[in-house]
Amino acid sequence: MNSTLKKLYKHSLTLLTDLYQLTMAYGYWKNRMHEHEAVFHLFFRKHPFEGHYTVAAGLEMVVAYLQGLRFEVDDIQYLGSLKGADDQPLFDEGFLNYLQRMTFSCDIEAVPEGTVVFPHEPLIRIKGPLIQAQLIETALLTIVNFQTLIATKAARIAQAAKGDTVLEFGLRRAQGVDGGLSASRAAYLGGCHATSNVLAGKLFDIPVKGTHAHSWVMCHDTETEAFEAYANAMPNNCVFLVDTYDTVEGVKNAIKVGKRLRAKGYEMTGIRLDSGDLADLSIKARELLDKADFENAHVVASDSLDEYKIKTLKEKGAKISIWGVGTRLSTAYDQPALGGVYKLAALKAPNQDWQFKMKLSNTLIKISNPGILNVKRFFDQQNLPIADAITDETLHIETTQLKVFNNEALDVSPYQSRNLLVSIFKNGKLIYDLPDIHTIRNHAIKEVTLFSKLKDYPIGLEENLHNKKTKLLKALNKPLKT
Amino acid sequence: MNSTLKKLYKHSLTLLTDLYQLTMAYGYWKNRMHEHEAVFHLFFRKHPFEGHYTVAAGLEMVVAYLQGLRFEVDDIQYLGSLKGADDQPLFDEGFLNYLQRMTFSCDIEAVPEGTVVFPHEPLIRIKGPLIQAQLIETALLTIVNFQTLIATKAARIAQAAKGDTVLEFGLRRAQGVDGGLSASRAAYLGGCHATSNVLAGKLFDIPVKGTHAHSWVMCHDTETEAFEAYANAMPNNCVFLVDTYDTVEGVKNAIKVGKRLRAKGYEMTGIRLDSGDLADLSIKARELLDKADFENAHVVASDSLDEYKIKTLKEKGAKISIWGVGTRLSTAYDQPALGGVYKLAALKAPNQDWQFKMKLSNTLIKISNPGILNVKRFFDQQNLPIADAITDETLHIETTQLKVFNNEALDVSPYQSRNLLVSIFKNGKLIYDLPDIHTIRNHAIKEVTLFSKLKDYPIGLEENLHNKKTKLLKALNKPLKT
Repeated sequence: MNSTLKKLYKHSLTLLTDLYQLTMAYGYWKNRMHEHEAVFHLFFRKHPFEGHYTVAAGLEMVVAYLQGLRFEVDDIQYLGSLKGADDQPLFDEGFLNYLQRMTFSCDIEAVPEGTVVFPHEPLIRIKGPLIQAQLIETALLTIVNFQTLIATKAARIAQAAKGDTVLEFGLRRAQGVDGGLSASRAAYLGGCHATSNVLAGKLFDIPVKGTHAHSWVMCHDTETEAFEAYANAMPNNCVFLVDTYDTVEGVKNAIKVGKRLRAKGYEMTGIRLDSGDLADLSIKARELLDKADFENAHVVASDSLDEYKIKTLKEKGAKISIWGVGTRLSTAYDQPALGGVYKLAALKAPNQDWQFKMKLSNTLIKISNPGILNVKRFFDQQNLPIADAITDETLHIETTQLKVFNNEALDVSPYQSRNLLVSIFKNGKLIYDLPDIHTIRNHAIKEVTLFSKLKDYPIGLEENLHNKKTKLLKALNKPLKT
Repeated sequence: MNSTLKKLYKHSLTLLTDLYQLTMAYGYWKNRMHEHEAVFHLFFRKHPFEGHYTVAAGLEMVVAYLQGLRFEVDDIQYLGSLKGADDQPLFDEGFLNYLQRMTFSCDIEAVPEGTVVFPHEPLIRIKGPLIQAQLIETALLTIVNFQTLIATKAARIAQAAKGDTVLEFGLRRAQGVDGGLSASRAAYLGGCHATSNVLAGKLFDIPVKGTHAHSWVMCHDTETEAFEAYANAMPNNCVFLVDTYDTVEGVKNAIKVGKRLRAKGYEMTGIRLDSGDLADLSIKARELLDKADFENAHVVASDSLDEYKIKTLKEKGAKISIWGVGTRLSTAYDQPALGGVYKLAALKAPNQDWQFKMKLSNTLIKISNPGILNVKRFFDQQNLPIADAITDETLHIETTQLKVFNNEALDVSPYQSRNLLVSIFKNGKLIYDLPDIHTIRNHAIKEVTLFSKLKDYPIGLEENLHNKKTKLLKALNKPLKT
């Protein structure tokens, strides 16, 4: 499973980074800081789509990217060709040699894919040589920001569909080849049932679905001939698109052909609506189908759907049983980027203690948390989540008090807890057994079912981390009000 | 240049299609229509971003995709494993054998990248066996929709920047690996000056730029030490990020280090602002820099910029000379998808005449144009564009009258014209010499400079095509009001 990226990409993705990561790497190297031990966390500050949960995704591709992390000869040649403002080389030979021999040696902890996560919680923790931890920032953000965004969007859409089948149809409007592939993977992971994207189906082991487009109907003299021809070719895959000319007539034509299909021992799977008033047309289609004894035929609908439109259609009594969702899912149309960030939290020179680091800001929500962090999730006796606490593993304490972000204290001592971050790489070696996508999807569905009911789920800093952060901030003359 | 996709992808992208393209292909094959000659056009119906021009992009990747179009053994094995509703194979062996032996043989005409195009004008015309033209629909849309969207966004941003340098910084929030790569390419093509994306720099020959992040400052005890250390490492690439602690103090620290740099024979390139009131801070920074004799040092700004914010900042008198634009460019945040479509326009059975095809719709703008289309652009004696006419090459006529889309007639007979579509593939062989990206970018900049001044540029159907469409529509009992 973790070789998906390697199956897809021939070119090393090591250069998939911002140039400033390399110029900083060069600076660290020049200043002999490059092998200082650093800790960075990848986290976001606000749930996407004004929602109250976020589904972590992208780890499998992060693993593949990190396993392939090495500078190839032509990467080094390219870097050697870059020039500064004075037209002299940007990087010197010694540094390029260092890069070429560098092997990945970080410890990586991460929240497993499909887990519901909250603002400020580290989704990934990176601990290792400063130069390496800095270089991988951009690719980790690119992969995790987008897949987490789409998995969350898919979960919201699946929730709105209330158990109906949701198909992802977004490839033609996706943001590039991998925009489409990653979106199909994350959409399935977040709760969709299948994709139209055949390459995603092959690479990621996702079910694929599809029947025909308007062009099929237009290639025949009449709509009935078109349905008939399709039914002759693929009697076991018949969803007829009925809105090329007139939707109600289209449903009647589909029923005609469905009856002939039944006479041959096959069942029409359903009809598809792709335009017009979907609530009204689906009710009419359902009535016609039921009256003609096609109670099991599905009414599939597509046409700029998302969680908001599905909710409205359900409220209007639409009789739709399969939802085809495209552009608005695959591009997360109403919020096409998750603002995940990657912040330095601790640094350690050889033979010295850890120095804790915070990114300060006039905007208090942007002040990051210092330390080597994890997230403890507390559960009651029914195994229901009670609260999340961000903890600092350097503090070596038993968590009893949680400072939630509104500054109230919550006593979590009666509850059991487990850490959300699990070990993925140790000294650059993969030690995590990546689950298959169906296992991840089941996990995501369970998590979303649980957390979508908990509107004001408490999250905060474990008491000792809270105190440490307050002290550090006082030393820097800033109030703490996260 | 056209081997970019091949350099990047190991896996064939032939399966990067919607399943329904393959089920329709199967239907055509079963019904012996698969080698009927078909004409499809790729076009959009509305300029993105409520704008009045669109910059065509993506052709180079379309060419690479089409050159690699063949079903590999494992693609065929995968398709053979797919099942229908009755758990029997979806495709039979004969069809799979046909696919495996199929070689691309279409004629492709397209608008060169960087050209300004208008709604309903074909960006690509595909003519060839129905089965092939249908199979490539999805990938062509994925590639062209996204790159055209981003090239247009970049052009709008570059226009707002009025000649200032614009850097694309969006990789970390891009939609996946190729979302980022394609965005960097299209952004440069549309008028940006450089990208932070190193892999895009290498693969597409785009200039790369970058200096340091907040984490660099946080790795040092003081901001001045951080700037000093950076200047020591890379004296020829110094843009100091000044807002980690306090922006005005940051500028003063940068000036201190800039003076030391100058004493060593180097010039500080500039400072960067990444938060706060950019108008106010840039004015203060400019004053401090000028007073300290750093008139040539740039004030770079980043922080959720796009064409609207740049315009507002300019109106407020911001003293910013380099604009770093990220998320809002690379995801086209305010409209993250272009609604390009791909419609059948003509079909020809062996030894029969062309049958012209229209996609009907209750929404008149959605009625497509039948025929084998091209676009004639008319120019006056100063070589300034006058109007565009969509023409039908089957009509073999000299264009004299143009029906513009508001139904008024425009006499274009005094003007010279040239066709926008040029031949790219003939019988599946590439016959077009792909220009390099810098040539495309220069073309785009010229086009945008010209068309951004023409607010109500007339576009319409050439008279004979208009009459033919009206006749066809009358036969189908629909009024014509495009």
